Formats: sequence, structure tokens, C-alpha cells
Amino acid sequence: MTKKWDVFPSTTLKVGQDFRLAGFDTAATPGFSGNEKDALKIMDKHAKALSELQEKLFADGRTGGTTSVLLVLQGMDTAGKGGIVRHVVGMVDPQGVQHRAFGKPTDEELSHHYLWRIRNALPAPGKIGVFDRSHYEDVLVVRVHDLVPGAPWAERYAEINAFEAEVAAAGTRIIKCAMLISPDEQKRRLAERLERADKYWKFNPGDIDERAYWNEYQAAYQAMFDGTSTDVAPWYAVPADNKWFARLVVGSLLFEALSSLNLGWPAADFDVAEQQRRLAELEI
Amino acid sequence: MTKKWDVFPSTTLKVGQDFRLAGFDTAATPGFSGNEKDALKIMDKHAKALSELQEKLFADGRTGGTTSVLLVLQGMDTAGKGGIVRHVVGMVDPQGVQHRAFGKPTDEELSHHYLWRIRNALPAPGKIGVFDRSHYEDVLVVRVHDLVPGAPWAERYAEINAFEAEVAAAGTRIIKCAMLISPDEQKRRLAERLERADKYWKFNPGDIDERAYWNEYQAAYQAMFDGTSTDVAPWYAVPADNKWFARLVVGSLLFEALSSLNLGWPAADFDVAEQQRRLAELEI
Repeated sequence: MTKKWDVFPSTTLKVGQDFRLAGFDTAATPGFSGNEKDALKIMDKHAKALSELQEKLFADGRTGGTTSVLLVLQGMDTAGKGGIVRHVVGMVDPQGVQHRAFGKPTDEELSHHYLWRIRNALPAPGKIGVFDRSHYEDVLVVRVHDLVPGAPWAERYAEINAFEAEVAAAGTRIIKCAMLISPDEQKRRLAERLERADKYWKFNPGDIDERAYWNEYQAAYQAMFDGTSTDVAPWYAVPADNKWFARLVVGSLLFEALSSLNLGWPAADFDVAEQQRRLAELEI
Repeated sequence: MTKKWDVFPSTTLKVGQDFRLAGFDTAATPGFSGNEKDALKIMDKHAKALSELQEKLFADGRTGGTTSVLLVLQGMDTAGKGGIVRHVVGMVDPQGVQHRAFGKPTDEELSHHYLWRIRNALPAPGKIGVFDRSHYEDVLVVRVHDLVPGAPWAERYAEINAFEAEVAAAGTRIIKCAMLISPDEQKRRLAERLERADKYWKFNPGDIDERAYWNEYQAAYQAMFDGTSTDVAPWYAVPADNKWFARLVVGSLLFEALSSLNLGWPAADFDVAEQQRRLAELEI
């Protein structure tokens, strides 16, 4: 008998006002007493369900609906954001996915407000948008390295909350996942990238420069959690030392979010019998 | 023992100067004597291989390579373009896919040359671009309905060939698949969309209007094949009455194209031992 969630991650992993990153167990599997094999079985079921749920969302968007989903992925280097895209987002039809990875801003992007490039990448109705990094870089790397000296961070969090509230009100279900690994786990993963020829391309000497700021990043993440986990766009703190668990969590959150949209198949906006007659009568 | 390809589809299905659409058997499985079950087994193998090949392509793009792949899908309504995206393109990491469906041009698109929106959607280095419909609409629906009266079609084919030659020379491997179904098969599929509540959203009364132009479309496809199947961007005529066979064909063509790029893993552009030392010495 496959183990299921004891408590669903939308409950246990939601970041509330009392969340403390210090002491958070990145190797734990809260709410789940099963193992990797159980997790894979659940994922298989999610894959089937997500396939239909995604198609309903897409159909809704094609017939005038305004609903979409936005999955925001943040995490330190090697935290597994790419693996989530490959293994979780990869379960649904690519036609329904709008994926965007945000790197260092281009000159054009820098010439605009930091939310400009984000707005341009928001998912269209019917789509599942996936942000690999996001506007949160502007309160993480930018804060850690003081790239906007004197930036009023509290105001920036309020600005982000207002932005996300607007996006949510327009029909986008927002799921923000912070993939959290321990410094030791990051060390192991960086070491692996330096040991395997098929992983060199994922490594950048700058990753070690950034690693040196681990504690500063922890503080920036804590402030981000404190400032931007809202009812309409909550953060989920995902223990990500175990890749299989992180994937199970994000897959389950995505499944729950899509299920809760309660979308049916769109009704025909034409007279079915009439069209059947037209089809039957047309000689080719 | 799983049946394999007797002759690979890049040979049997490539559109040459003597290709005639009239009489083409859309229910055949040329080059393949296996059944659906055999096809699914081959697809499982392709899925594993494609996963690594796509990652190599992506890695190449991330490390300065200019190679990309572009899969162009054309076909009459219900020909199965969407199924190819879901079931074939869906085998690879969505991070590496740049999917674009081309509908009726917007006012902005109409204000530009018809290749403008196509150029804007070309795959970035390292990506697998997928066009669900494409610039070929401008020599198919546009020709059938004479939307650009007096358009010099021969010149348009030459223009498209020059465009694709330029794209290929810049590093993009182009695979153009025409999904070919019989009029009877289209009738069955349209009827199904009118019978199933989960398919209504895919149906549009305009689909029957277009079906009335079947013979005109056949002529436009033939002229397109005659004018635009080139060495750098050949057309493949995919018998698509059997969905499983069409998926096997496109999956196999994609597999062959990616394999033939002969990409290895990028070499490290840093001193591996030095970075290992830096990582080991950094205290967190």
C-alpha cells in the first residue's frame, strides 16, 4: 500500500509570520512518512491527473477564461529549480507551459522598473507560467550585494505584494516555492558538478563567490519570507536536500492548485446538432 | 523482439521533386512493419535518448554554441499537431523547448512582413523550437482564400527558401513535418469533437468552412511541397491517420536530428582543480 501525504504540504510548508529559516530542517519530509518509491507512485498519479487538469485550464483560456497559474521557483545555486522544471513541469503538455528563466538583467531590462520584465512574462490565460528565479532576485541578490544602494526594502516588499495581488485578482493562481538546501548539501552538489564532465556546464566559478555570502542570503530570504508571504501569494518553504521530496512537494502543490480551480470542460458555444448536420452533409 | 524501423523515415518520408500528394496513403506505415505496441517501445527508448540529447543541446547553447533545432508542424485541422506537441515534444525538458502556436495574425503582425513574427519566434541557441503552424500559413490559408490578391507565389516560395537557408546557416536544424490525414479521417475526428463534451472546445464551426476547401488545400500543399522542400529544410510527409505512427515518425526524426548534431558535453572553461580547492577551503 503506497504511503500518502499525512498532511498536505499546502498546510505544513506554508510560510507564516512565525516561520524561521534558521533551524529549518532542509532534509526533513514533513507531512510525509513514505519513501522515495512511494513518492514516485504518487507522482505517477499526479502526472495523469495534471495532464487532464492542465488541458481543462488550457481549454478555459481558449474559450474566454482568464485563469492561469504561476509557479515561482527560488533557491540558492544547485537547489534543484531546474530539476523541478524537468521532472514536475515536464509532466504536462508543453503547449500549456510558459517557462521563463530570469538571469542577470539585460541593459534593456535595467532601463525599466524591475517588475517590467516580470509583467512581460506573466502567463497568458490558460497557461501554467513557470518562473525560474523571478522578481525576488531584486530582494535577494540585489539586497545581498547592495546593488541598489539605499533601496527601501520594506517598500519593495509592499510593492511586490501589491503587484502580486493585482496579478492574482486578474485570475492567476500564484504558487511560490523556495527550494531550501543546507550549505553542506550545496557543497556536495557543487563538488559533483566539478567531478562529472556532464555537469561542468552547470558550474560557474561565480557560484563559489555567491556561496561565500550564504549567511547574508539566509537573512535576505528571512526578510523576504517575512515581507511577502501573503494570502493570495503564499510562500512554501520546500525542504530540498532530498530531490525526490522537493519534486513531490511541488508536484502536489501544483496538483492541488489546479484541482482547486474546479474547472470543467467549456460548454459548446455553437449548436452541436447543427454542426453535426453540416459535417454530415458536406461532400468532399 | 520489438520491431524496429526497416527504413528510417528521414529516407522514406522526405519530400522530393517527384512527390505527389494525390494518392498518398495517409493510413500507411512506410518503413515500419511493427504495430502500435512496438512503436510505443521505440518511443520509450527515444524518450530516454532525447532527454540526454536535449540537455547536451541546451548545455551547448549555455556555453556559447549557436546550434538549435526547429520543428515546424503543418496540417489540416485535426491532423494531430497538438498531439505531437503533447506526446513527442513533451518527452523533453520544457526548459529546453520554445513552443509557439501561430494563429490568425494580429493587427500588429499584419502591419509587418509575414516573416516578421516568425523571425521573432526563432529558437534561441540550445533550444528546440516548435512551430504549431508557421510561415507556411502564408502560402496555404492565404493562398486558398486569396487573402493577398495577386501574390506572386513562386516568389514567396523563393523568399521562404532564402529565409530558411539563412536560419539554417545560423545554426538551426530545421525539420518540417506535414501531418497528412485523409478527408474521411478528418470527418471522423471532427465528428468526435462534436460528440464528446471534453472536445467541444477544440471545435470551431469555421473548421467545417475550411473543410469545404479540401481540394484547394491539397493543391496549395502540393505547390508548397514542390516549392519549399530543400536540402537544408526538407519537408517530411507524415501519414497521420494513425496517431501512433505519426508520433513515432516525428519522435524518430527529432531523435535523428539531435543525434546527428554530434554534441558532446562542453569542456570546463575554468580550472577544475582550482575550483575544487576553492570549494573545499571556503568555510560556511
